[in-house]
Amino acid sequence: MTNSKPKILLSNDDGISAAGLAALHEQVRDLGDVTVVAPDSERSAVGHAITIADPLRVWEFEKNNEFFGYAVNGTPADCVKIAYWALLKEKPDLVISGINQGSNAGINAIYSGTVSAATEGTILHVPSFAISLASFTEQNFSYAARFARKLALEVLQHGLPKGTLLNVNVPAIPEHEIEGVQVTRQGKATFREHFDKRVDPANRVYYWLTGQKTEIEESLEVDDFVVKNRRISITPLHYDLTNYDYLDELKSWNITP
Amino acid sequence: MTNSKPKILLSNDDGISAAGLAALHEQVRDLGDVTVVAPDSERSAVGHAITIADPLRVWEFEKNNEFFGYAVNGTPADCVKIAYWALLKEKPDLVISGINQGSNAGINAIYSGTVSAATEGTILHVPSFAISLASFTEQNFSYAARFARKLALEVLQHGLPKGTLLNVNVPAIPEHEIEGVQVTRQGKATFREHFDKRVDPANRVYYWLTGQKTEIEESLEVDDFVVKNRRISITPLHYDLTNYDYLDELKSWNITP
Repeated sequence: MTNSKPKILLSNDDGISAAGLAALHEQVRDLGDVTVVAPDSERSAVGHAITIADPLRVWEFEKNNEFFGYAVNGTPADCVKIAYWALLKEKPDLVISGINQGSNAGINAIYSGTVSAATEGTILHVPSFAISLASFTEQNFSYAARFARKLALEVLQHGLPKGTLLNVNVPAIPEHEIEGVQVTRQGKATFREHFDKRVDPANRVYYWLTGQKTEIEESLEVDDFVVKNRRISITPLHYDLTNYDYLDELKSWNITP
Repeated sequence: MTNSKPKILLSNDDGISAAGLAALHEQVRDLGDVTVVAPDSERSAVGHAITIADPLRVWEFEKNNEFFGYAVNGTPADCVKIAYWALLKEKPDLVISGINQGSNAGINAIYSGTVSAATEGTILHVPSFAISLASFTEQNFSYAARFARKLALEVLQHGLPKGTLLNVNVPAIPEHEIEGVQVTRQGKATFREHFDKRVDPANRVYYWLTGQKTEIEESLEVDDFVVKNRRISITPLHYDLTNYDYLDELKSWNITP
């Protein structure tokens, strides 16, 4: 090990034993000093949650009788925070979050724990990207992992602007069917949701959330459309939520204290 | 009740029994048909989490022997979703989330459950705002609640652009000391964090997250600075996270599949 080796932190939201994380680790482990810090169990759709009311615990997690990484009883954002502030000896040069099982394109980006881990890296001024495979069932992450490796090398070379992360979504199709890479914006399609109302054995009502994305914008500049059209989508995101275009109009409102 | 009465949905992240929600309810209840749907317990810093792996349950919650609203075993975003899709008979005209105990200015906006409830309203095309009192201890929400009422009337009159919500932060000082209202952008100051490492009675290590905001930008255009300077801050936020300024440069990267 030399000092010039990049230090890479891996996390995810599917949990430390997820196949997507293992595939990512396998592909990038020789790029530098790689540390895995991930939730001890699945934390999908946790948004940018952090744990403030409970203590965090950390376990060393083994795979094939070898140390694989640190498991944390917290969210993806917690994992990146505790890695940065407490577990790692040196600041990482790159955070990669994933490979998520399921697309995080479009509106999903705001619900995604995978994206939130990369956002947290960015908040800590570490170049970061999130990568997701657009299928809830496909277990072959090898192509997406190889693409993550390629992108990691690019990010280590170019860096990323302050406050900016990349959200990468890979279609779950065989490699030879992939038609390219598109730089995109976040799609605006929302969900038509439904709460399935059921009655449990104790005769109490409960609800399950279900939903379907509607009206995807048909443009090769939009992340979810691109992924549906056999391309890898890369969207630069930031965590400045200000709608600058609306500042002036809002100033014209009659709101005095 | 007539059809012309606006339908207003209230939620929060401090839970249905929080004082800030009661103060808000008290001030806006006569503006229209008001429904409260809020988490059954505190869900602070849950980000934009939604519950997908567990069923949701809903209880009728009483206060002073009267029906007050619906308590949900979920996140603030869950509450707005289940209200919209399952509990309310008609689509609301306005969502108000709060009044939060503690500022949600600056980077806090991305961790905030209060903001996420308003974001969820916006995703559902309902004009929405989040309102927070910038103190973790001050229990007098009456001025902030009166301001919420005033702003509710403005939002009902003007509407808000598609995809845009307002994030309102009120300084916790006496009314006569408040110096005005500023339309602001989200501050970029981050936290210097620390994980306090302790040992529990069973001799196991655990960590508490603590943090302090550093280097607030000193500008009356920035939310957290404005609140520190005795003004109410109103920031228009949106959930399009795309960093449009970076699209072109990213397209110049050498990333082929």
